[in-house]
Amino acid sequence: MNAVTFLSPITEDIKLVEDRMRAQADEAHPDLRAALEHLLSAGGKRVRPTLGLLVGNMLNAPHEKLVTLGAAVELLHTATLVHDDLIDGSLLRRGTPTLNARWSPPATVLTGDFLFARAAKLAAETDHLPLMKLFSDTLAVIVNGELTQMFTSRGLINRENYYKRIYAKTASLFEMTARAAGMVSPVGEETVESMRDFGYQIGMAFQIVDDVLDFSGDQNAVGKPLGSDLLNGLVTLPGIYYAESNPADADILSLPQGGWTNAENMTRLVENIRASGCAQKAMLEAEQHIDRALTRLESLEPCAERDALENLAKYIVDRKI
Amino acid sequence: MNAVTFLSPITEDIKLVEDRMRAQADEAHPDLRAALEHLLSAGGKRVRPTLGLLVGNMLNAPHEKLVTLGAAVELLHTATLVHDDLIDGSLLRRGTPTLNARWSPPATVLTGDFLFARAAKLAAETDHLPLMKLFSDTLAVIVNGELTQMFTSRGLINRENYYKRIYAKTASLFEMTARAAGMVSPVGEETVESMRDFGYQIGMAFQIVDDVLDFSGDQNAVGKPLGSDLLNGLVTLPGIYYAESNPADADILSLPQGGWTNAENMTRLVENIRASGCAQKAMLEAEQHIDRALTRLESLEPCAERDALENLAKYIVDRKI
Repeated sequence: MNAVTFLSPITEDIKLVEDRMRAQADEAHPDLRAALEHLLSAGGKRVRPTLGLLVGNMLNAPHEKLVTLGAAVELLHTATLVHDDLIDGSLLRRGTPTLNARWSPPATVLTGDFLFARAAKLAAETDHLPLMKLFSDTLAVIVNGELTQMFTSRGLINRENYYKRIYAKTASLFEMTARAAGMVSPVGEETVESMRDFGYQIGMAFQIVDDVLDFSGDQNAVGKPLGSDLLNGLVTLPGIYYAESNPADADILSLPQGGWTNAENMTRLVENIRASGCAQKAMLEAEQHIDRALTRLESLEPCAERDALENLAKYIVDRKI
Repeated sequence: MNAVTFLSPITEDIKLVEDRMRAQADEAHPDLRAALEHLLSAGGKRVRPTLGLLVGNMLNAPHEKLVTLGAAVELLHTATLVHDDLIDGSLLRRGTPTLNARWSPPATVLTGDFLFARAAKLAAETDHLPLMKLFSDTLAVIVNGELTQMFTSRGLINRENYYKRIYAKTASLFEMTARAAGMVSPVGEETVESMRDFGYQIGMAFQIVDDVLDFSGDQNAVGKPLGSDLLNGLVTLPGIYYAESNPADADILSLPQGGWTNAENMTRLVENIRASGCAQKAMLEAEQHIDRALTRLESLEPCAERDALENLAKYIVDRKI
């Protein structure tokens, strides 16, 4: 499974989305245009716009609205990355320098704000009131999730908290994208709900896989050290599984008391989690989400977009970065 | 002229707006609720919601939409202040510690983002598509203005640049508020346009007066040192007038080359501007904006709100902080 198999029906549309994103900085200062160019060229597979375009094209949504929606969603995603990297002090993302590494914090704050503002403006350009409400609700969910994460004690091992966190951080935007693409299509409530759940399920899977790759991934491809979440006090699904199976592990017991600040112990814990099979167990849970997503496609007429959505869902658990 | 005379028709409404603002953090973390409480209690006269409420009540807008609009506008304003204070490194605003002075930069960035998100959500709750589009356009104008200011060379003496800057920074939100209140009212395009221009004119006046008070104000009431804009390399209207009358002044000539970083010279320049009458000349320009605003009220039926709008406009050039 590779990206080509789900991108093929919408290769041209994705270019339109990227043009639309670039156009947001047309009247802005050259430095800001350069920053946006840097952010766009830093890659990412445009998974979110792809999802919106495939769902919408499959359901005969107006093409222009899908391009606008795709650009809005991807800009919102980009805005959250810019502020996240500033907040975490990250200097690299996917091996490429972050804005934060090149610009002053004030410029980075304002660039993120600019992207938020243009994302909201694009959402408004869909001329679709329920979509705009959904968009602003989702923005509130994402930011509230980031704040909750900031205020929650580090080293917390809590499955419920984990699911809430990955919903806010990742699944909410996938869910919104698929739902919005359904909402602007000439289909009934039931189909919109199917698409919403499809987006939700692949979004949950996407983040679980990200968290698994933090333990099992190719360090060069992921672009950050293995176990980096744990070293920041964030216990993700592989660690939660490990804690449930090894409740007496001294490193696990140390976490809520700040043990995650001890890099030596955490390196040992990362190795133990890697050896335990808990990352594979977490991957199975991601695959269950993908299975649920795929059942949402069953009742739809076969078409190139449906096949591509199936491939997109499968790609999410097959990807290596 | 004091605040009471324009607030009296809407004292209860302003309380509803403040309740609505506070309610945005109801489900958020206690620390965030405390931060919002701190921001709300730090004062401000709620001039923007007041403007929206007076215009809308005068024109028989649905009451609930005006309260929602007022809360959206004031939260957006608050969000920009939070990020501004972070960007400037300001520790005090109106003599009260900024969020920035109490919280870490990451918490401050996210609190600003949270306020942006909730402002957008409130704008969406007006259920009025053109209003939401106007709101997101205005957000884009404000942020673009801040970015332009950041990228523009300090020490620039340029009248056109100054007017653009104060429009983006201040007048755009006043304009949007009055226009939006008109848009949700059962009135024609012409009245909406009158209200838009009323908002624009008092907004321009508001910022010019702010800039005048930076030279002539009561330092304790303003809460920052006199001439603080100049010390940050920002040349405002009194300084522009002074430069136009004194093109050979050595301190003025030094500005574009970074002379604003010399605190001793700038203290002298501030004193010279204060002695020159240029602040009074700038104040006359603010009064002209107010005169234009007042002509916009002439064709309206006399009522308590119209009187209050007149008082609000006059208050803007009479205020001391």
